Amino acid sequence: MNTPANIRIVLCRPIYGGNIGSVCRAMANMGLSDLVLAGTGAFDQLEARKMACWAADILKSCRQVATLAEALADCTLVFGATARMGLYRQHTRAPREWAPAILAAAQSGKVALLFGPEDDGLSNEDLEQCNHLIRIPSTAVYPSLNLAQAVMICAYELYTASGVFEPLPEKSPAAANRMKERMFAMWEQMLLEIGFMEPDKARHMMLGIRRVFARGALSEDDVRILMGIARQTRWHTGRTKKMPDGNEG
Amino acid sequence: MNTPANIRIVLCRPIYGGNIGSVCRAMANMGLSDLVLAGTGAFDQLEARKMACWAADILKSCRQVATLAEALADCTLVFGATARMGLYRQHTRAPREWAPAILAAAQSGKVALLFGPEDDGLSNEDLEQCNHLIRIPSTAVYPSLNLAQAVMICAYELYTASGVFEPLPEKSPAAANRMKERMFAMWEQMLLEIGFMEPDKARHMMLGIRRVFARGALSEDDVRILMGIARQTRWHTGRTKKMPDGNEG
Repeated sequence: MNTPANIRIVLCRPIYGGNIGSVCRAMANMGLSDLVLAGTGAFDQLEARKMACWAADILKSCRQVATLAEALADCTLVFGATARMGLYRQHTRAPREWAPAILAAAQSGKVALLFGPEDDGLSNEDLEQCNHLIRIPSTAVYPSLNLAQAVMICAYELYTASGVFEPLPEKSPAAANRMKERMFAMWEQMLLEIGFMEPDKARHMMLGIRRVFARGALSEDDVRILMGIARQTRWHTGRTKKMPDGNEG
Repeated sequence: MNTPANIRIVLCRPIYGGNIGSVCRAMANMGLSDLVLAGTGAFDQLEARKMACWAADILKSCRQVATLAEALADCTLVFGATARMGLYRQHTRAPREWAPAILAAAQSGKVALLFGPEDDGLSNEDLEQCNHLIRIPSTAVYPSLNLAQAVMICAYELYTASGVFEPLPEKSPAAANRMKERMFAMWEQMLLEIGFMEPDKARHMMLGIRRVFARGALSEDDVRILMGIARQTRWHTGRTKKMPDGNEG
């Protein structure tokens, strides 16, 4: 599922240009582009452009409307973000919980995520326009997030839930035991030859070596490097005439 | 598992005071407090205090050191955040994937999360000090997050994974069918009495009404409100002499 064009970020009476710009950048990072400012006064345009960084197009194309009702008129579902507690704020869920419902609804209609002003957040009157409430997990002692940070967390959860992000695959697969055993045999031989251990202590010492290399999951590339070290050491100390080529399948 | 005091945020050569302050606030939101600035020049203290907001104590107590090596000397595990691609940046994982490993390691030692400067991010030389790399999911066209936003996403994932945040329980449980059937019976009676539907159409119309109220999961509180409406309507139209009390167990 794509992060759809149908998700709108609505900032309700935002005050600081820097935050508005930061919201634009966060949206660009997470594949959103529909921004509406409702009831905004004059804000620092220079600061907004600075914080928007390369997301200036979102800032430029954002719509400014006088009222929240206008910003939400064509939306089929409205989610309001609140950090405050109170009688009207008891039915909240975390953005990760809401994400699937938001993405599903955005398949068939415009969905708004609504964020209140920096000083006070959404008022009870604003809440009347929301179908659902979002509460971002945060500490009880300092629950209030910066406006742009709050937008980022929500946008990030939607982007993550949409499944569009494909993490880079680990370029080398985890090494199988067969390959690792060949490597340990090479190390044992090498460590005996350079006199690191006596033959009667080899078994005990190799257990220690095995433990060292078992701390993390070795990839095939990792094992190839370790084999290369053993091979090169043996060649360098003259114990083998075969010139190492550094490759091991 | 608590978000442990053992997690340190290290900012490598940060430039802007505003970002440093925003990092402090994000840390306070997510229960972190150990901040180290490495190789920082002079930065705008006023801007930093402004953006730190109520997290001024983290800003005040943060440690400034000359080199990354000093910042990381007592750490047992170092995670570097990078958005750039390249030969040395292929073994990355998302913060959500790393979170359990980071929290587990922080049980027994200090773990650092390292973030590069705003303009260029961590250099290849910086990466040498990292045991593991974090890549925050973001769009391919605009993958570079603001510094404080990047810190927030990582801190948020750790806070969420730590399980300390207890979402407010839904104060009213979902209504059981028994209760909903009682409500539908009251509505049917009421809708017949006010002439909204004829008896021979009641069955068909009630299916529509049932569908309307099945769109979302009704809580017991919701059903009590709906029962109250039916009861009050019947009382108001004089069809029942019993004064409604608005309560229904």
